[in-house]
Parts: sequence; structure tokens; C-alpha cells
Amino acid sequence: MAPHLVQPGWRFWRQAACTLGASVQHRTWAGTPRIPRPGSLWGATTTSPRICRSGSSTSARAPEVTLTRERYPVRRLPFSVVSREDLEAFERVVPGRVITDPEVLEASNVDWLRTVRGSSAVLLRPRTSEEVAHILRYCHERNLAVNPQGGNTGMVGGSVPVFDEIILSTALMNQVISFHDLSGTLVCQAGCVLEELSRHVEERGFIMPLDLGAKGSCHIGGNVATNAGGLRFLRYGSLHGTVLGLEVVLADGTVLNCLSAPRKDNTGYDLKQLFIGSEGTLGVITAVSILCPPKPRAVNVAFLGCPGFPEVLQTFSTCKGLLGEILSAYEFMDAECMWLVRHHLCLASPVQESPFYVLIETSGSRAGHDAEKLNDFLEQVLRSGLVTDGTVATDHMKVKALWALRERISEALSRDGYVYKYDLSLPTERLYDLVTDLRVRLGPQAKHVVGYGHLGELRQGDGNLHLNVTSEAFSPSVLDALEPYVYEWTAGQRGSVSAEHGLGFRKRGVISYSKPPEALRLMRQLKALLDPKGILNPYKTLPAQA
Amino acid sequence: MAPHLVQPGWRFWRQAACTLGASVQHRTWAGTPRIPRPGSLWGATTTSPRICRSGSSTSARAPEVTLTRERYPVRRLPFSVVSREDLEAFERVVPGRVITDPEVLEASNVDWLRTVRGSSAVLLRPRTSEEVAHILRYCHERNLAVNPQGGNTGMVGGSVPVFDEIILSTALMNQVISFHDLSGTLVCQAGCVLEELSRHVEERGFIMPLDLGAKGSCHIGGNVATNAGGLRFLRYGSLHGTVLGLEVVLADGTVLNCLSAPRKDNTGYDLKQLFIGSEGTLGVITAVSILCPPKPRAVNVAFLGCPGFPEVLQTFSTCKGLLGEILSAYEFMDAECMWLVRHHLCLASPVQESPFYVLIETSGSRAGHDAEKLNDFLEQVLRSGLVTDGTVATDHMKVKALWALRERISEALSRDGYVYKYDLSLPTERLYDLVTDLRVRLGPQAKHVVGYGHLGELRQGDGNLHLNVTSEAFSPSVLDALEPYVYEWTAGQRGSVSAEHGLGFRKRGVISYSKPPEALRLMRQLKALLDPKGILNPYKTLPAQA
Repeated sequence: MAPHLVQPGWRFWRQAACTLGASVQHRTWAGTPRIPRPGSLWGATTTSPRICRSGSSTSARAPEVTLTRERYPVRRLPFSVVSREDLEAFERVVPGRVITDPEVLEASNVDWLRTVRGSSAVLLRPRTSEEVAHILRYCHERNLAVNPQGGNTGMVGGSVPVFDEIILSTALMNQVISFHDLSGTLVCQAGCVLEELSRHVEERGFIMPLDLGAKGSCHIGGNVATNAGGLRFLRYGSLHGTVLGLEVVLADGTVLNCLSAPRKDNTGYDLKQLFIGSEGTLGVITAVSILCPPKPRAVNVAFLGCPGFPEVLQTFSTCKGLLGEILSAYEFMDAECMWLVRHHLCLASPVQESPFYVLIETSGSRAGHDAEKLNDFLEQVLRSGLVTDGTVATDHMKVKALWALRERISEALSRDGYVYKYDLSLPTERLYDLVTDLRVRLGPQAKHVVGYGHLGELRQGDGNLHLNVTSEAFSPSVLDALEPYVYEWTAGQRGSVSAEHGLGFRKRGVISYSKPPEALRLMRQLKALLDPKGILNPYKTLPAQA
Repeated sequence: MAPHLVQPGWRFWRQAACTLGASVQHRTWAGTPRIPRPGSLWGATTTSPRICRSGSSTSARAPEVTLTRERYPVRRLPFSVVSREDLEAFERVVPGRVITDPEVLEASNVDWLRTVRGSSAVLLRPRTSEEVAHILRYCHERNLAVNPQGGNTGMVGGSVPVFDEIILSTALMNQVISFHDLSGTLVCQAGCVLEELSRHVEERGFIMPLDLGAKGSCHIGGNVATNAGGLRFLRYGSLHGTVLGLEVVLADGTVLNCLSAPRKDNTGYDLKQLFIGSEGTLGVITAVSILCPPKPRAVNVAFLGCPGFPEVLQTFSTCKGLLGEILSAYEFMDAECMWLVRHHLCLASPVQESPFYVLIETSGSRAGHDAEKLNDFLEQVLRSGLVTDGTVATDHMKVKALWALRERISEALSRDGYVYKYDLSLPTERLYDLVTDLRVRLGPQAKHVVGYGHLGELRQGDGNLHLNVTSEAFSPSVLDALEPYVYEWTAGQRGSVSAEHGLGFRKRGVISYSKPPEALRLMRQLKALLDPKGILNPYKTLPAQA
């Protein structure tokens, strides 16, 4: 069985006009500034982002972002203000790594989506957990608010200050502590960049159990703190299952070491679970132990065109049946997404124009078996008309280029204007209705209303819709048309108003659409227990108290 | 490709002298009394346990179990004592379901291993979460201690009272609330028996994501409360990943409904995680939503004989490489385990006598592909001498009979005498050393020292050793020879002193071998937050305070 599948009437992979191969270099999101990391394990291996300047793309630098405290009705809590003495104290803990230069701070005060902007005057760059512990112990005593920051790639304004919180960056905490070649257990500091970790473990025959579009910038600590889902969730499940251990510094500077736990350990409460998805509000994750699955021997990616959303769903059912245990991803995007990645990033579609596109990945241990399963599946969906065109890649670079079409949608959106971003769990059968509904509701107010996402996180009933609306600039009237409409629609379907992005600053007010009052009360009690002064990432996750 | 694999020189499955087929009926552990559940969804479908009385098996009824308060140095905490007024109040909440008959109570006061015995004078059998909430609200006000009880199949004395705690049984909370045929999401009350849930979902094309020897008696609520691992952990991971939602009644009677969460939901802290593995000390789980994977189309079980433990490990490496994604279980047992199941339960080995036995299960979507992978694997391990004899089953009943050899070891041990039970996570390469070491250390004091368990919960580095020692009756000198030796040995290997059984009453004192003081402090704070009066399952999980 030839590893590269070609169906009669199918086109080979073809290079797009503006070099699809190059897209692999674009992994770092252009909007995300990278902080140079001297002494990093990774050295200078990272390529700088390249910007594709297509005809009508927006200018490279968007207009200044309005300060959060001006755009949103939020009141500063009575924390202390950083004094000269505080800066001197920090300088003793992290000498030479207390940043007050406003230009450097600007990148850490603004989120990559350019929707929120804090006004912090100081950024600290610890290298060790002990330094983090010193800093927090000091801030706790002095009642200084702290904003833990990883790669600053969050979608909900959770990673930047709201007012003048001290930014505690994990960027210099980027060392791999250990990797066990037999078990695939990776232990590393929280500031390691996901893509660099991927490279590290792939050289050793393993893969990271998570993957996401922001991999070139996001930090593993941030991934865990936000319980990132991403592109491998279908196969390897959530971080609640794959994270083996954490080291966390608590608000008062206590170092909680739950790092070296074996895969199975039922000795007391599973404390690490508390911090997975708590968005830096309960403690600062300083190191992570994570289970890496073996690198699959054979990977195929099929990129298919579908005539409608019902066909996207039926293709998924067929695929689950015929691909079974080798199915590792099922992603969909609509025609407007494809337009955006072509227009803003010069990525061309490898298949003929279709209302919907589907990306299917298989990962297995035996290329011949996998190819046979995939062939049977493709034959069936083509014959039945569920799919109208498609291409398949097995070569590593071509696989990456196909993935780039899906992974870089966020980036294309951010170049299209101001982005209103929703990340919803919904019953699959209603999933896309919200997109068509909003197109009508918003009319010409919106530049684009697009939908893409993941299907079938092990089950067919739920889907994860990334619903995105763009307008030239932030517009309160667009926002009013969207909210609370989108949340009410979602709650009406008993979906989640944040499937994987978290609540951060911008969504914290909508938690009650997905959680009952008793749950919110217990969350507040946990916050009060772990961070009695509320200094850790204030104004995030939990709604403001009346 | 024939689905039933036969290698030259391999024997077909053969029926053992005392009817292996019948072993499938033995799923309910003989030691575990079943409470009749009138009005149960399941009706009278459960078969009663059958006892195989082989020549030298111990008598059917073991001697009376010493009261926990007499055998162990434990002091009753100042809870109230149940009064006549309390009984009357309970009678108003659960009319006709307030049990005070000492004979009925006896079964709920003693654990199935017959190692601990409480002296509770009252057992309550609520049917709904609201009844549980009423009961807890009342007990909280009156400062009455409560022992939540599921199937009472725990291994560490966590499921029975220590003193006179009120037993709150989930036995009548046995209704399936919903099952989504498309998604595989099962929502059910906490008292549903695992095996009955398995049957329910298997009829609909799914399987439960967990399976364990006690399936015929254990309740799903108890499984979640103890974070049960079991026989499908390798493929489907821990309950922290597969449990979608929980309904929990807190100590003060608050009903916390986190039941209807979609698979992906990042709205605030993942509260359900707190209760998974908390052994009923933080809240009473009343309902569970759990993700059931699709039933595999092809299941093969190979039962193999290995000449030594190094060969067990090498067979595992080979198997991971050649079976890849279809490997769903890898279990091992030593020759003494086989002796015990033959001697006490009349189960005969399907392969020739060997120092070690391995059970390998594959689950896949395409029988032909799976058989080819399995054949290649078996050829290789036979050729290389890693395996000396083996048999393969694909037929459902024969698969079950092979599994029974492994699943019923616990039951065989319980018939052998008093059992000292350890459940350790250890690095695989040292895993079995502890067993041989203890045989020398204990000498003729022990009847049997056996080792069995699971390998490679997705990774090769860790193994889960079920180390069991039997003696005619409880002997303090055997215990002194075992403890703290076993725990120190495990801590020396940075293993876990409780891989999947939890701590319950009997292991709560050893938590510090696996957890640092900061973790223990936070656990105590969580307990104090959620159960300020400490009425929920007291004397369990956390060590007594000095």
C-alpha cells in the first residue's frame, strides 16, 4: 500500500501562489511580541514572524488600544501602589530583571487580540520558583496585585493587567527539567514555549498531548492555567487527564510541590486539579509534569470540501465508524474562514471552493492499515456526495501546511479588524445555526461572521464552535447586538459559554450562563481560601462582587 | 483473516475441570453482601454469587471481625450520638428506609475484606438527592457524623464506619437518568452498580470507561469518590478525564449541581475534580455524568506465560510497538496468584504453568487489522522466547473467562485468610523486586506473598503493583514486618503508596510518604472549608491531627 494516497479524480497537493511551504515558518503569531530570553535552553532557534502583506490587508500596526479601565466599567480594588522601595526590593530578588521601560511594558500590557490594555508600570522576570515565591511573599505582605503572564496569547483578556498590577512573567522560566525517554514524562518550567517543547519531545519519539495555533508563543504554564483544549483534545483528552503534576506558588509564597506524582496516585485530594484552568487566580504555576504520548508512526491529513454543514456532520459520523481509534482530529471551517486566511495570510485552499472545509487527521502505528482505513472512508464519502473535493498529505511539511490553514484562522481574523470572539460548546446539530443567524442579525455592521472549530471530542453530541465577528474598529453597537444574545442562545442549548478559552477579564461576567449560584459561591470560597487578599490576577475569572 | 487466531503449537482454549464458563457468573464478589434494592431499575437480574468449595479452601464464614476501635489506636471525635428523636426525624425524611436491625447493619459495618468493623446503629437509604440533602442538613445541624457508603467494596476501610457514624447508603439511588445514544453520555444516580451500567450502555453500542473486579457490587458513585483506576485505565485514562459532571451534596446540605456540563467547559474552576478521589470526605456524590467510549468492534484477549519478570516487561515493550493504538489492557500476575484462583475458585490456567502470566487485550475498529497486528506481535514474542505458551480468545464468553483469572485474584486472596493489601505505583524495573524481597523477609509467617497489577498506564515508566500478603489470621507481627517497610521502600523509589485504592481509614496515616507537608496543609484547609464540622466520613483520608 502506497503511503501517499491518490484517488482517481483527486488532485495532488499543489503549492499556492504565495508559497504554502513558507507558512510553516509563520508559527509565531505576528501579533504576539516575543520577549528575548537570554540563557534560554532554546537559544536563538526561533524565527521571527514574517508578515504577508497582501493587497487589502490592514496595516501592520493597528491603532492604539483603549485602556481597559476606560472602555469597561471596572473599579480598581484597594491594593497598594508600587513604590520606589518595592522596586528596590524586587531588584534584590531578581537583579536586572525588573523592567520599567514603558516601551517594553507596552507589549505586556496589551493582549495579542488588542482588545484590552492595562497600565502596569513594572514587569518582573523570575528564573526560578524560589524567586517567584519571594516575589509573592513580598506582594502578599505589601498587598500588591500580581498579574501572572505566560506567552500572552489568551483570548479573553486574562493575561494582561486591568489596572497597575505587577506583571509576573514566566518568560525566563524556560528550562526543561527532565524527560524520561521510556515513559514520555516531561517535567519543565512553566515558561517553556509549547512549540519548543514539541520539538524537544519529538526528537525523542514522543509528542505533546496538546497542540494549538498559538504554539509558537504560548507557554506550557499558561496552557495549564487556562486548561487549553486545542487540536489534539479528541485523541488525548483534557489536561485534567494528561498533566501528571504541578509545582505552584500560592499567593502567600508557599511552594506547593505536587510535581513528582506517578501517573496513578490516590493519596489524598488531587490538588493539582484545582489549578488547571484557574487562570492564575489561585496560584502561579511554576513547573509542569506532563505525559507525552508516543509519536505515531503514520500520520495522514485529509483536507476536504463539503457542500453544507449537515454533510460536515455526516462525514464525521462516517469517519468515526471507519477510522475508529486512528482518528486524531476532526476540524471544520467555513468558506469565510478560507477567504480570511487567503486574503490576510496568502494561504491558498488546496481544494476547490466549498461552503465548508474539513480537516481530518489520523495517527496510527501501521501506515498500511491506516491508509486502508482512510481510503475506505474517502471512497465512501466521495461516492455518497458528502465530500465534493479533497486532498491527502502524509509528508510532514505538507501535513503542516494543511494544518496551517486551520491553525492560522485566529491570526487572519486579528488582521481583519476588531474581533468579537466566542468559544462555545453546543450540541452539534445546532452548532452552525448561530453563525447564519448572526449574519442576518448583524447585517452590514459586521465585516465578517465566521465559524470554525472542533467536532466530536470523543463524542458526537457536543461541538466546539469558534464564532468570530469582525468590524473595522470596536463598536459598542455591534457588541450590544452580540451580547447577551450569543450567551442566551448558548444557555438555551445548555451549552458552555466558554469551551476552552476560559473567562479571563472579558467573559467573567457571563459565568452564570453556564454555572449555578452554588457553584459560583464555592468558587469564591476557594478563591478566598487560597488567596485571601485577592492579589492574584484580580478582576479575572470570577465576576465582580456586588 | 480468521478472527480466531491459532498459532502452530498453540493450544485452543480449553474448559477447565470445574467449568470455566461458570466463572462468568461469579462477578459479584462472594464476600460482598448485596443489599436487595426494591424498585431498582435492574430488577432481579443479578445472579447470586456461587461459592466454589475446593478441598482446602477456608470455611465459608470467616471469624468475627474485631471492632476497629479496639484494633486500632483511634479516638472518637466529639460528634453527637444518634437519639430516638433523630431516628424519628430520619423516618420523616426517608420513611421505611431507616434501618436499625443489627443483622442488616452488620453487613454495612464490616468491609468486604473483613479487616475493619464499625458499630453504627443506623443505616439510611435515601432515593433522591433531595433526601440526601435533607439528611445532611439535619446531621450538620445536630453534629452527627455520616459515613457515605456505596457497594462497600473498598480496599482501605473507607466505606464503613469507624465508630457509630450514620451509614448513608446509595443503594436505592440506582436509576439511570439519561443516556445519549449519539454522544455516549451517561447520566445516572450514584448508587448504580457498575456492571449493570456496563450492560445498559453495551446494549446501546458503548462501554463504560472503567472496569474493575468488583463491578458486580461497586457503585459508580463510590468509583468516582475513590477515583477508581481499574482495567481500562491504560486506554481510557482516569476518571478525572472521563467524568463530565457530578451532582454533590455538601456537608451542610447544599446541592451542588455540576452535572450537565458539556465535555469542554472552561467557565470557572472545575469543581467536580475536587470530589473525584475525595472518598466522601468533602461531599456526597449523588449523581454522575460520564463519557462512555464506543464499543470496540473487535476485542481480542491473549493470555500468555512468561519465564520471568524481565520478560513480562520486554513483552510489554514489544506489545506497545506492534499493537500501538489498539492495546487496551496489559495485566500481569505471578504463579502464586494462579495457584490461589485455582485453589479457592476452581479456575484453571489456560496455559502451561509459568512463573508469570500476562493478559493482553486489544480493542479496535477492524477485526482483520487487529488480528494481523496481534499475530505479528505473538509471532515475535514466541520466536524470541519472551513468551513460552499462550492462548487467544475473541469469543465474548471466552474473553470474559480469561479476564476472570485476573479479576478474581482479590476474591481468591480474601478466601485465603487475613489479607495485608498494598497498591503501589513503582518504576517498572523495580516493581517485582519488592515481592521477592518480602518473601524472604516474611518467611513462613506469611501464607502467600503475591504480586499482580497493571503495566504501562500509557507510559512504560510506572507500574501499578498490587502486593498482597496473607496469613491465617490478623497478626501484629506480620504487620510490623510489613509496615513501615513497604512504604519506605516505595517512597525510596518515589512511588505512590496508594496508586488506585485511596487512603480510607487504614492508609490515612501514610499519606506523608507520598505528599509534602504543604499539600497536606492545603488538603486540611479544603476539608475545613467544605465540611467545617468534619461530619463527612470522619477518620478517613487525612491523618488524625496531633
